[in-house]
Amino acid sequence: MAEKSKILIIGGTGYIGKFIVEASANMGHPTFVLVRESTLSDPSKSSVIDCFKKAGVNIITGDLHDHERLITAIKQVDVVISAVGVSQTQLADQVKIIAAIKEAGNIKKFYPSEFGNDADRSHAVEPAKTLFATKAQVRRAIEAENIPYTYISSNCFAGYLLPTLAQSGVTAPPRDKVVSLGDGNAKAVFNEEHDIATYTIKTVDDPRTVNKSVYINPPGNIYSFNELVSLWEKKIGKTLEKVYLSEDQVLKNIEESPFPDSLIMSISHVVFVKGDQTNFEIEPSFRVEASELYPDVKYTTVDEYLSRFV
Amino acid sequence: MAEKSKILIIGGTGYIGKFIVEASANMGHPTFVLVRESTLSDPSKSSVIDCFKKAGVNIITGDLHDHERLITAIKQVDVVISAVGVSQTQLADQVKIIAAIKEAGNIKKFYPSEFGNDADRSHAVEPAKTLFATKAQVRRAIEAENIPYTYISSNCFAGYLLPTLAQSGVTAPPRDKVVSLGDGNAKAVFNEEHDIATYTIKTVDDPRTVNKSVYINPPGNIYSFNELVSLWEKKIGKTLEKVYLSEDQVLKNIEESPFPDSLIMSISHVVFVKGDQTNFEIEPSFRVEASELYPDVKYTTVDEYLSRFV
Repeated sequence: MAEKSKILIIGGTGYIGKFIVEASANMGHPTFVLVRESTLSDPSKSSVIDCFKKAGVNIITGDLHDHERLITAIKQVDVVISAVGVSQTQLADQVKIIAAIKEAGNIKKFYPSEFGNDADRSHAVEPAKTLFATKAQVRRAIEAENIPYTYISSNCFAGYLLPTLAQSGVTAPPRDKVVSLGDGNAKAVFNEEHDIATYTIKTVDDPRTVNKSVYINPPGNIYSFNELVSLWEKKIGKTLEKVYLSEDQVLKNIEESPFPDSLIMSISHVVFVKGDQTNFEIEPSFRVEASELYPDVKYTTVDEYLSRFV
Repeated sequence: MAEKSKILIIGGTGYIGKFIVEASANMGHPTFVLVRESTLSDPSKSSVIDCFKKAGVNIITGDLHDHERLITAIKQVDVVISAVGVSQTQLADQVKIIAAIKEAGNIKKFYPSEFGNDADRSHAVEPAKTLFATKAQVRRAIEAENIPYTYISSNCFAGYLLPTLAQSGVTAPPRDKVVSLGDGNAKAVFNEEHDIATYTIKTVDDPRTVNKSVYINPPGNIYSFNELVSLWEKKIGKTLEKVYLSEDQVLKNIEESPFPDSLIMSISHVVFVKGDQTNFEIEPSFRVEASELYPDVKYTTVDEYLSRFV
């Protein structure tokens, strides 16, 4: 068996980064995480850093803005995965990773921070529009430099949306009333974070994923909002009151909300009203689907996930 | 009477910008708004642009990234007010306004986009920490260029927080249960958006505000979360169930939430747990309070505001 690629994760202490670091180490890849000095001394990050160390992860102190250290880190590995947060600044700063990869010359694949909707197929309004445009610009920069890549379109984080049935501000799935953005018929995809990380690491040494977009769309995780509510109603044996907001109302709410609420709402709009996670065909020449590539991965279905809350 | 200064507002179609443009025009200042071409053709912005035109506001097409047009716009006015959104990118891009003001040479006062907590007195954790640090860097850039300024610390937007009693995700003040971040004793300040805009425009030609921080802390608007809930309970004649989250729990929630939820939560933390809007004295040498400067302004109190929802 071929040796497993050494992986550097940038943004590894963030929301999805932690799962990717854990999966990389568990699946036997020599795993490196770039961590800022300020993060190393941040008490709220100490437990995750300790976990990484116990799992044998190599902590490298560094920063996107410290070009020399970044190159030193990159030269130790084969593959770089960026999981930087979805702020426009952090996304745009990935051009610094691209420049360092180009100069280092040894990287066989780069994963820009995606882990959401396909940035090239966005129907978002502002402020999400700029966010997806920034992700798309990063893709173009990678392609212009001829750096091999995989783009992971992992759609919704189940752990973020399912415990509340995508209702903002509540802490448990609603048992009385739900609010739907639009008519509730657009299909979205809800993937458990461990599964997103597992599929991502599976693609690292898989030649079928080079210069491709990998969609994580397992059949058990594709639900419209109405279907999600029906499933929950069956589980609790109760019918919920449903309120439907028109798209115009959703757009008005986005327009009248300050940032960053407007960003969350504009992402919800594009997922639940526009259906951007499923409103296109996956063409096999550029795009592959993760659960087809890796039928052996036993992913958590939405049905199983929701059963935790009954 | 002296002629009123001509004012250019940048970010005038945004959440607080709209109120500032309206106040500037209503209070008799020749008013100019810099609007991007993409905003002019955005259907969701057409009604606000129409309102501006009807109010006699001059729309100037331009962009922070188009230096020549920005200078042309700046040369037409006396005072520049930035109300760009609280994304790190937009805040940091204000250095382009500073460079243009420096080159134009005619501006007698610049207002960077603040309209929140005092950026120089922040106890925020990430990601809000970086946001306040960016605002503070903009202040330092203004001071380094010797551009006269006023910093408006307007604290909380009442229209954003009071309709929900600062509970995220609900659409009306709660009648059963509230969640407090921390012990609920830190005092915050809740100002109605029209009042923030009125006080801001009042300072424009007031020499007492040159190179000062102006705090909008009217006595009727300073409430701890517990006091706010008590006031609401009195109005509805009912006692609410209270849940108190410890600071550790709040920090853990921030840490485990993806951006931009983490940003909203870290701003709430610094306001409601740390008390950053009130945990210091206003020293008269650098700092002045708006309701003392302008006792004639009849501001909307929190008590009056909440009565709308009973």
